[in-house]
Amino acid sequence: MTDRLIYLPLGGAGEIGMNAYVYGYGPEGKERLIVVDLGVTFPDMDSTPGVDLIMADTAWLEENAARIEAIFITHAHEDHIGALAHLWPRLKKPIYARPFTARIGQMKLEEAGIASDQLHVVTPRPFTVEAGPFKVQFVPVSHSIPESSALVIDTPAGRIVHTGDFKLDGNPIVGEPFDPLLWHEIAKEGAGVKVLVCDSTNVFSPQPGRSEATLAEPLAELIAAQTGMVVATTFASNVARLKTLAEAGRAAGRSVCLLGRAMKKMVSAAEETNVLTGMPGTISAEEAVEVSRGNLMLIVTGSQGERRAASAQLSRGKYLGLEMNEGDTFLFSSKTIPGNERGVIRIMNAFSEMGVDVIDDRGGLYHVSGHANRPDLEAVHDLIAPKILIPMHGEHRHMREHAKIAISKGIAAEVATNGTMIDLTGEAPKIVEYIETGRTYLDGNVLIGAMDGVVRDRIRMALNGHVLITVIIDEDDTPLGDAWVELMGLPEVGKRGQPVADQIEDELAEFLERAPDKVISNDAKMDEALRRIARQVTMEEVGKKPEVTVVVSRLMAE
Amino acid sequence: MTDRLIYLPLGGAGEIGMNAYVYGYGPEGKERLIVVDLGVTFPDMDSTPGVDLIMADTAWLEENAARIEAIFITHAHEDHIGALAHLWPRLKKPIYARPFTARIGQMKLEEAGIASDQLHVVTPRPFTVEAGPFKVQFVPVSHSIPESSALVIDTPAGRIVHTGDFKLDGNPIVGEPFDPLLWHEIAKEGAGVKVLVCDSTNVFSPQPGRSEATLAEPLAELIAAQTGMVVATTFASNVARLKTLAEAGRAAGRSVCLLGRAMKKMVSAAEETNVLTGMPGTISAEEAVEVSRGNLMLIVTGSQGERRAASAQLSRGKYLGLEMNEGDTFLFSSKTIPGNERGVIRIMNAFSEMGVDVIDDRGGLYHVSGHANRPDLEAVHDLIAPKILIPMHGEHRHMREHAKIAISKGIAAEVATNGTMIDLTGEAPKIVEYIETGRTYLDGNVLIGAMDGVVRDRIRMALNGHVLITVIIDEDDTPLGDAWVELMGLPEVGKRGQPVADQIEDELAEFLERAPDKVISNDAKMDEALRRIARQVTMEEVGKKPEVTVVVSRLMAE
Repeated sequence: MTDRLIYLPLGGAGEIGMNAYVYGYGPEGKERLIVVDLGVTFPDMDSTPGVDLIMADTAWLEENAARIEAIFITHAHEDHIGALAHLWPRLKKPIYARPFTARIGQMKLEEAGIASDQLHVVTPRPFTVEAGPFKVQFVPVSHSIPESSALVIDTPAGRIVHTGDFKLDGNPIVGEPFDPLLWHEIAKEGAGVKVLVCDSTNVFSPQPGRSEATLAEPLAELIAAQTGMVVATTFASNVARLKTLAEAGRAAGRSVCLLGRAMKKMVSAAEETNVLTGMPGTISAEEAVEVSRGNLMLIVTGSQGERRAASAQLSRGKYLGLEMNEGDTFLFSSKTIPGNERGVIRIMNAFSEMGVDVIDDRGGLYHVSGHANRPDLEAVHDLIAPKILIPMHGEHRHMREHAKIAISKGIAAEVATNGTMIDLTGEAPKIVEYIETGRTYLDGNVLIGAMDGVVRDRIRMALNGHVLITVIIDEDDTPLGDAWVELMGLPEVGKRGQPVADQIEDELAEFLERAPDKVISNDAKMDEALRRIARQVTMEEVGKKPEVTVVVSRLMAE
Repeated sequence: MTDRLIYLPLGGAGEIGMNAYVYGYGPEGKERLIVVDLGVTFPDMDSTPGVDLIMADTAWLEENAARIEAIFITHAHEDHIGALAHLWPRLKKPIYARPFTARIGQMKLEEAGIASDQLHVVTPRPFTVEAGPFKVQFVPVSHSIPESSALVIDTPAGRIVHTGDFKLDGNPIVGEPFDPLLWHEIAKEGAGVKVLVCDSTNVFSPQPGRSEATLAEPLAELIAAQTGMVVATTFASNVARLKTLAEAGRAAGRSVCLLGRAMKKMVSAAEETNVLTGMPGTISAEEAVEVSRGNLMLIVTGSQGERRAASAQLSRGKYLGLEMNEGDTFLFSSKTIPGNERGVIRIMNAFSEMGVDVIDDRGGLYHVSGHANRPDLEAVHDLIAPKILIPMHGEHRHMREHAKIAISKGIAAEVATNGTMIDLTGEAPKIVEYIETGRTYLDGNVLIGAMDGVVRDRIRMALNGHVLITVIIDEDDTPLGDAWVELMGLPEVGKRGQPVADQIEDELAEFLERAPDKVISNDAKMDEALRRIARQVTMEEVGKKPEVTVVVSRLMAE
């Protein structure tokens, strides 16, 4: 049997979030495997009410755990590292990451009570991790978090470049710039690059991306022009932005205070690992309370309108003794991720009611993206000159567009969504298998499968309400008293102006009176009949078909 | 007692949607009233799961129903007319609207089984409706639906202009252009305009708005360039856009088919009332199936990603025998309303999976807004020269910004959100009262109050799941058998790997064994104790505090 090189995305391909990619090399079905990234995506009320985090389905990895050599984490964004502590106990393999990323990973593991002795801190290329048939180098790329890395993965079948998340930034303020010469070298070594597995996030952005450094001046000008307190929010992990904002605040003679746990954690981790240096000194919330408004700047978490983050807390009133007033300014140095609009708008309006001026990034002056735009992607295709391009880190529409660009340049390309196993051994990518894969939910403190029905039931209750029926049947299969009905999440009174529960109870009483013994004595038949009556009455009275739970209690002869 | 002129928004002020405004004139507390618009807003899973429509709270209007003279509907958008049939039975007052709007209103009333004999069709100014102390004229304005009207409301205290929804369009394709000369005349008559109550939707759009007519050429070019089937979606009520799209399709040699009930209804109503003329002929879905793809264009409902609209149906597969294929094109001639992004993106990706090219309005070529942008609003302020400006039709941030513009020009202004009663009698607006007002939900076929707790319970079940406990207590206050627990929307197995229901039952059994008679015999104490145990066990095992329903059944001595 000949060896083959495979690629299998389990998350991040067909969505933006929850990144988890697998590479394999070896005989079919016995390939040795490496995992790249274990990220999360965030739930929403529409499809995942009550869920805390969403992660890749690891069933396939668990089945093949003996074949896994190692886990590589490209960078410390939640959609790349967020599932590490939740899923690692299912895999228990060595983890490799650069210092800042490893520091964040270590905190996650320790919080979950997992020893971090299998977490290995690596330095960038030329340092090489040998993992079975794979030789893996971390290559610094610029992104919206320090130490983002592409992976150069050498295999007996050729070289893969897995870009991770990146942009072409020659001056990213914190961390290494994107280095075209280095990539030129990587592209020219040996037989060159066989496969480029590439970030597709911004493929629909037609202009070249802008450098993080372009924000310093407009931010400094904006903050200098304000007279009241200035509060700015951005992604907590965008350490470069935090530095730029803090410097703009200091330059305007303001004391700077960071608010929000995630932000402080990121800054500490970045300083501890020497990734961040020269960050202006900041003051605590207690100290900030004593500073006059015109001399104060807060940098806060919650750019996506998260209800428990600092920005939302401030929009609801006092937070840690600090409060926004008329004449203050709130700046979103961020973009709103699609789906988060409602939360962000809620905060904007709450500030508006306080008389606070809200400035967002409508004009593009106060935020830049961390991903390569279309012309940047094309430049990278040219620079790396792969034989095959596999788009990743995108919804289907992004990946399809990205593949189209590659194909138009004569590069073989294939759109592979989660669960699609691709054979990369030959000249062109070949789909060889579809792995059944879904999503894993962290629900409270339990991991459940997306298809377990738990969340489906919650959605149904949220849409249709819940009716509970209890009936007691005595030793002689005779109903003891009437059925009892409780409604949850349904209008009390129906269209005839009568209590709905009473009407269901009346119908149930009538049914129980006439029901033959063989129905009364049969749990399944009772359940079905009572459920049908409850749904029918509720439908007539309220126009909704509710979820129904029937509890038939049978008394036993003593 | 002297007479006063009051303004009271019950919907639409502090939100975009659910418009409902009240004007009053007369002695304090005895003002005669008119209502302008009765619209809806649309529910979402985050805050209103399972709700069908959201409308203004009419409690105050019902209390003062005897004082209401009439209801005026400015135009036929759902956020202005959508609540008419639901709320009219609570008010039962004459309704005034222009022909197309009235036709839509009539359909709504008839569908709800309400006679439409109190619906009066009016012609524009100079025709005047006398309603108590009010003299009301409908003045045509351009918008994204035919026959949108501003109201000129003359009162003994002066003239009010209530703009309704408008833009400055000299060539709106269907319906009347915005006529500056007419408005100049209105502004100059008598003592001029005292109060401008003005649309604020696009106050943050810095460029002048563009005419509907600018779309014809880019749309024609785009559609002519396609080789496969072309499917375009836009707002069903944008009759002008439907016409432009259909003309572009015909010009490209395509047969045009309208799909979606709402769209057909709008076109019929517009043709019946002679608002729309010269609409190209269309074919039915049955006929469309027979047309070759390159000669076919569908215009479909569902620009906001609505799950049951034609666009979503097509994204899931065959719809009325029609199906999208690789090489076809889907065009969003619309913008995505904030909050609808997820649904729209879902459709885009489904089409991408089919190999369909999706074109949206990123470049601004294929859609224009129906609302006046900031420079347009300023032009209207200047044209109408009011003494007072009251912003409406906006979230708080829009209304605040709009008021700032007015104040910067020396026009008195006040931000009045829903429930804020303003006295407009004097030189400046004066807040005189806050009316307690909320929202009314159409839930299935029942109207409920937003604060009734029904939806709150549904949200809680969706976030936390629902635990049901049934216990039977015999004649001697002794539990008969064990408590029975059912879970809905909760993980079956907790963190210790045991069924959660079993663990709750065990804890309940232990409690019931030891509970004193005075607890067992007391319903309230039992309810509280059992609920607490269920929440505690679930919290420990699953990390969630569920909703709990306790049913204690007591057997009676026979």
